[in-house]
Amino acid sequence: MSISFEILLESKENAARVGRLRTPHGEIETPVFMPVGTRATVKSVTPEELKDLGVSIILANTYHLYLRPGHEVIAGFDGLHGFMHWDRPILTDSGGFQVFSLAMLRKITDEGVMFQSHIDGSKHLFTPEKAIEIQEALGADIIMCFDECVPYPAAREYVMSSVELTADWARRCRQAQRSDRAGLFGIVQGGMYTDLRAESAERLIEIGFPGYAIGGLSVGEPQDLMNEIASCTLPLLPKELPRYVMGVGKPENLIDLVAMGADMFDCVLPTRNARNGQLFTRRGTVNIKNACYISDHDPVEAGCSCYTCRNYSRSYLRHLYMSKEILSYTLNTIHNIHFFMQLMKDIRTAIADNRLGSLRREIAG
Amino acid sequence: MSISFEILLESKENAARVGRLRTPHGEIETPVFMPVGTRATVKSVTPEELKDLGVSIILANTYHLYLRPGHEVIAGFDGLHGFMHWDRPILTDSGGFQVFSLAMLRKITDEGVMFQSHIDGSKHLFTPEKAIEIQEALGADIIMCFDECVPYPAAREYVMSSVELTADWARRCRQAQRSDRAGLFGIVQGGMYTDLRAESAERLIEIGFPGYAIGGLSVGEPQDLMNEIASCTLPLLPKELPRYVMGVGKPENLIDLVAMGADMFDCVLPTRNARNGQLFTRRGTVNIKNACYISDHDPVEAGCSCYTCRNYSRSYLRHLYMSKEILSYTLNTIHNIHFFMQLMKDIRTAIADNRLGSLRREIAG
Repeated sequence: MSISFEILLESKENAARVGRLRTPHGEIETPVFMPVGTRATVKSVTPEELKDLGVSIILANTYHLYLRPGHEVIAGFDGLHGFMHWDRPILTDSGGFQVFSLAMLRKITDEGVMFQSHIDGSKHLFTPEKAIEIQEALGADIIMCFDECVPYPAAREYVMSSVELTADWARRCRQAQRSDRAGLFGIVQGGMYTDLRAESAERLIEIGFPGYAIGGLSVGEPQDLMNEIASCTLPLLPKELPRYVMGVGKPENLIDLVAMGADMFDCVLPTRNARNGQLFTRRGTVNIKNACYISDHDPVEAGCSCYTCRNYSRSYLRHLYMSKEILSYTLNTIHNIHFFMQLMKDIRTAIADNRLGSLRREIAG
Repeated sequence: MSISFEILLESKENAARVGRLRTPHGEIETPVFMPVGTRATVKSVTPEELKDLGVSIILANTYHLYLRPGHEVIAGFDGLHGFMHWDRPILTDSGGFQVFSLAMLRKITDEGVMFQSHIDGSKHLFTPEKAIEIQEALGADIIMCFDECVPYPAAREYVMSSVELTADWARRCRQAQRSDRAGLFGIVQGGMYTDLRAESAERLIEIGFPGYAIGGLSVGEPQDLMNEIASCTLPLLPKELPRYVMGVGKPENLIDLVAMGADMFDCVLPTRNARNGQLFTRRGTVNIKNACYISDHDPVEAGCSCYTCRNYSRSYLRHLYMSKEILSYTLNTIHNIHFFMQLMKDIRTAIADNRLGSLRREIAG
């Protein structure tokens, strides 16, 4: 197998664990947060800046890269690593989520999903086989099964048939893999029905994958419900393999899910909020456009060791934001990614020290 | 005097010279190109990236910073250097050009210019005294006299009175200086009339400044006319002092003007064109959005040692540009600034080797 996972430490407080995930492009310490680089770039920062921030793996989006510039173009560079100048691990999603959330006029059949590009309206067919072909061309270290991501709320009957479809597609994805270079993860669906989540997990485990993800969370449901579904589903996934909760989330969500045994996360939150002027701190978010910061000489967060906080005041960051300067996005993104990287480091230490509960209480939310 | 200028080498071919300009924040080798950082940031790059590119001095705009965030805010940081985290020299313009090109409903009197902000329509009065007060608050190393920049074309009579006004304002600027920390440059006006340029130069030299600029060029006139005016005016300026041609320009312009004895330049060309996907090379510009680059594995310019060319293909740069990714602006700007910095280095070497003429023939345009 191309990837391997080792559990280094287990919490005595809860189901949290510290692990090491080996991939063709290097090792990842878990629990890990993966910044999102949708179009083969984590918006507004360079790969060197990401490395300085301690980012060990990024996510890129199959749907977007298939449409532009096209996976064949990227394959010509031996994949995303060569194309985007990033030599650490990459995970690609399958395009499933975007086909359902971004594309127009989609039609779902057993074969796959026919959809129109959100860029130019052109028609495309994504099948499990196609999703694997594209992801293998992109050359990621971890690739994902093509799944149907059901919206929230969704009727039980619909979710039931979707679990069936997702399992069938997962089997086809497994068979479509041409190389075992990348680790292929199965994605558990089942909406907000715990029994359907259990069925979905069982069906995927029957097929057998080197890692499992939980999809269809953080799609608009209340936070309690998300936690309930995650807490019922995570224990059903093989303990010795990495568990990835997709599209999550807020700092408090990360700690809660780690305590339930989750190892991997991705979310646009740190990067998107940065571009909206929302900066994370341990005491809540700073909205940098607020007039109170106009002459504020303090950094975003006192004691923060990121490049932005070491060199720039809230006053300057507010000025850049109000002036719509590009540097605003870069400096804000650096701070927010640093916050998430530091949080994950603190989480890993807290697991070792059996004080994840106390870290959770320090975090607002 | 706060700044001092030393001529290190003189060309045997023409009036070009290599010099060293000492300022409170360090030395500058001339001829020098100053990237434009209008709002206390050179768009899309960090100060560290500018230093890596060999940028020795940047320009910031008085008009913009006065309106937002306000010079008092910046004065609270002991000036622009502290505010924007840049410890090398800064030159601020006087706001004259922007008051005439950007502001609304301006009214010129002997006292100064009443104008409305292009941001919120608020009314403001810029006088020579105010322009110096603002620039001293901004804490630049080189500051500029408040001048009237006449449009092209302009009637002789109007330009004549403008030369008079600019000389009067220059005298008031000199008197308004509270500190000799910054070097104050006079700005020669006179439109496209060589005799009025001569009169303007004479009036300013009577007052006496540690450096002189030529304003009102590159305002829409034909290139031959710009060269004619510059070639008549530059020899009239004191040989032992720095000569700055404002708002210029294209690579070929820089070489031509250096050959006439100019030492300093600023222009938005490298940074603005970068954001429009126009990349400079010795063989002309590359328009990165062209479809021919979709799978092009070559760097923007073969042999270029900039960060962008060392690590990224035209294919990736085209992809970023087409996707409107922020990293596109950063990588393109790095390449274009590198091109201008390398060009100035080559110009300085060519002066020493008496082969500026041959360098001129290598540059397209």
